Amino acid sequence: MSETHNHRRHALRAHLREQNLDAMLVTDLLNIRYLTGFTGSNAALVVHAADEPGTESRTVFCTDGRYLAQAATQVPDLARVNDRASDLALAKRIGTEPVEYGRVGFESQHVTVDRRDVLADAAAKAELVRAPGLVEQLRMVKDETEIEALRMACAAADRALADLIEHGGLRPGRTELEVARELESRMLDHGAAGPSFDTIIAAGPNSAMPHHRPTDAVLAAGDLVKMDFGAEVDGYHSDMTRTVVLGKPAAWQREIYELVRAAQAAGRGAVQVDADVKAVDTAARKVIEDAGYGEQFPHGLGHGVGLEIHEAPALSQRGDGRISAGMAVTVEPGVYLPRQGGVRIEDTLVVRPSTPELLTLTTKELVEV
Amino acid sequence: MSETHNHRRHALRAHLREQNLDAMLVTDLLNIRYLTGFTGSNAALVVHAADEPGTESRTVFCTDGRYLAQAATQVPDLARVNDRASDLALAKRIGTEPVEYGRVGFESQHVTVDRRDVLADAAAKAELVRAPGLVEQLRMVKDETEIEALRMACAAADRALADLIEHGGLRPGRTELEVARELESRMLDHGAAGPSFDTIIAAGPNSAMPHHRPTDAVLAAGDLVKMDFGAEVDGYHSDMTRTVVLGKPAAWQREIYELVRAAQAAGRGAVQVDADVKAVDTAARKVIEDAGYGEQFPHGLGHGVGLEIHEAPALSQRGDGRISAGMAVTVEPGVYLPRQGGVRIEDTLVVRPSTPELLTLTTKELVEV
Repeated sequence: MSETHNHRRHALRAHLREQNLDAMLVTDLLNIRYLTGFTGSNAALVVHAADEPGTESRTVFCTDGRYLAQAATQVPDLARVNDRASDLALAKRIGTEPVEYGRVGFESQHVTVDRRDVLADAAAKAELVRAPGLVEQLRMVKDETEIEALRMACAAADRALADLIEHGGLRPGRTELEVARELESRMLDHGAAGPSFDTIIAAGPNSAMPHHRPTDAVLAAGDLVKMDFGAEVDGYHSDMTRTVVLGKPAAWQREIYELVRAAQAAGRGAVQVDADVKAVDTAARKVIEDAGYGEQFPHGLGHGVGLEIHEAPALSQRGDGRISAGMAVTVEPGVYLPRQGGVRIEDTLVVRPSTPELLTLTTKELVEV
Repeated sequence: MSETHNHRRHALRAHLREQNLDAMLVTDLLNIRYLTGFTGSNAALVVHAADEPGTESRTVFCTDGRYLAQAATQVPDLARVNDRASDLALAKRIGTEPVEYGRVGFESQHVTVDRRDVLADAAAKAELVRAPGLVEQLRMVKDETEIEALRMACAAADRALADLIEHGGLRPGRTELEVARELESRMLDHGAAGPSFDTIIAAGPNSAMPHHRPTDAVLAAGDLVKMDFGAEVDGYHSDMTRTVVLGKPAAWQREIYELVRAAQAAGRGAVQVDADVKAVDTAARKVIEDAGYGEQFPHGLGHGVGLEIHEAPALSQRGDGRISAGMAVTVEPGVYLPRQGGVRIEDTLVVRPSTPELLTLTTKELVEV
């Protein structure tokens, strides 16, 4: 793993030199995890642009006493400072070095207004320069280590759902909360550190709410049951939605199900290298709009997933940019009929030079439980 | 509940007028929850200083389409705007009003450097003024609604631990992870929405690490087992640590246990209205230092708990300020002997005019499981 993180820091250095930055003060914990592998709750990192892999003499990591042993294991290749105020300690260090830290980037998308002043004071002669989103930009394209973690996270969710159904966990009489809890527990059985977000189980009319939170509502025969859930493995998040019907589907249920399924397939098909993210959204949205349900699809098509459950790129009309190989994204159209019910179908997939690699493998046929 | 939130907004207004602010743009979601009861994941709030309870015509709440129905229920008494970029929408609204928003406070401890600029542009003629921590200051002193939620959260943790022990869940041969998972599951059984942080189960030598995360390590006869865990109820967090011994305690185990217990009692005794937070830490620390274990107690004595698991005040030598009635704090000294084992004992309690009210009721006698 050390090699992987080394490589990522090296990629960041290229961006720093492009922006004429001598170094970057990284304070976002997920970005630090990405660049070092450190998983504790307090850290800061200075990446010096002129360091070389293997001899990173001016690249420094800081955490506090609680995590020193952990840091020695997880971040063996960097100089380590012990200080509870990690960001401030590194800013002071920058401020007391003679000349090498002239222009230091900081994460202006993450650092608060108050904290910036504290850090800038400490950095003294060094100039703190806004450098928003540099690491996030790297994180958009996943390496194979990351994709393997996502694959395991998606597999845990797939298996949990299969177990739930096989053991009769989806049946009239159970509550949404009971189903959510069983699904989360079964993800743990399959290696998840936890759910990757609060599981959504929405039955019957509740399925018409895109972001319903599970309640004591009881599942009934004939209900659509929408399940949006994911597992976290090694810090990476899976995201999958499946909608099933308890018993035989009514005609309207089958109609919107097949519509969403077609839209989802169209969306997946549009996830191609160099595609505009808006066009990906449009590809799925057009299927739903052409069927007259455009108003009933009130959210974007998908989003990046990785160390965060929602990260760049946004596959939506508000998104910006193009698809690259190695991005991991969701494709999740839905149609929601108020007070009746709704269907959403969502996969997590990885963009590949040819066809995307599907990570969530549960069937998208309409399952009658 | 509406009355409670009304009252909290009214308390904030007094602070705004003190600081010559016409209004406050609140963007921290926990602060918004505190002031309105809203529990969704996207919102912003403008509290106008000159509004009166019951006629809050210039106090405005914003969320997006996903949460409109929820907001209608949770925030019935405020004007509601529908916009995905909630903070920006309210900043624009401020910017287009004629005169009433001259000086508008913003949460400079929360708003990032980049976002401040976007909001300041939108606010146009209105001046965005730093107003850090105003709501957090109110939140330090809990009202009875909050204390009742904390009481329920602490009760869920107490009951979960009692169940765990009663059903033989703590025994040689189980792993730390299994115990952690059972404890978390049992908290759900007793009404928790979830654990209030990642449960710490640390057995044998692992108990010497203050913030150990549970592993596949197997519990063995003679081990100290340190359990630091809590439940979340209605958004409020409980926090409790108990350390037990599997079988008969060795002399050294009993010695450090009784030492920590005495220190914890001294710390609780020092939690008095008007006490300096440093002095509270000192009261417990002195007991441990006098016994020659000062170096083995490498963290602060405690912290506030509420909508966050760690909030002000800090009961430590780095803390600042005085204890007030209604504060909810933890008292959690520990002694950790590297490679041998450690003991921590932690309660959550509420400061009262006389003696603090203990919310975590599990015995602090040395339990031999």
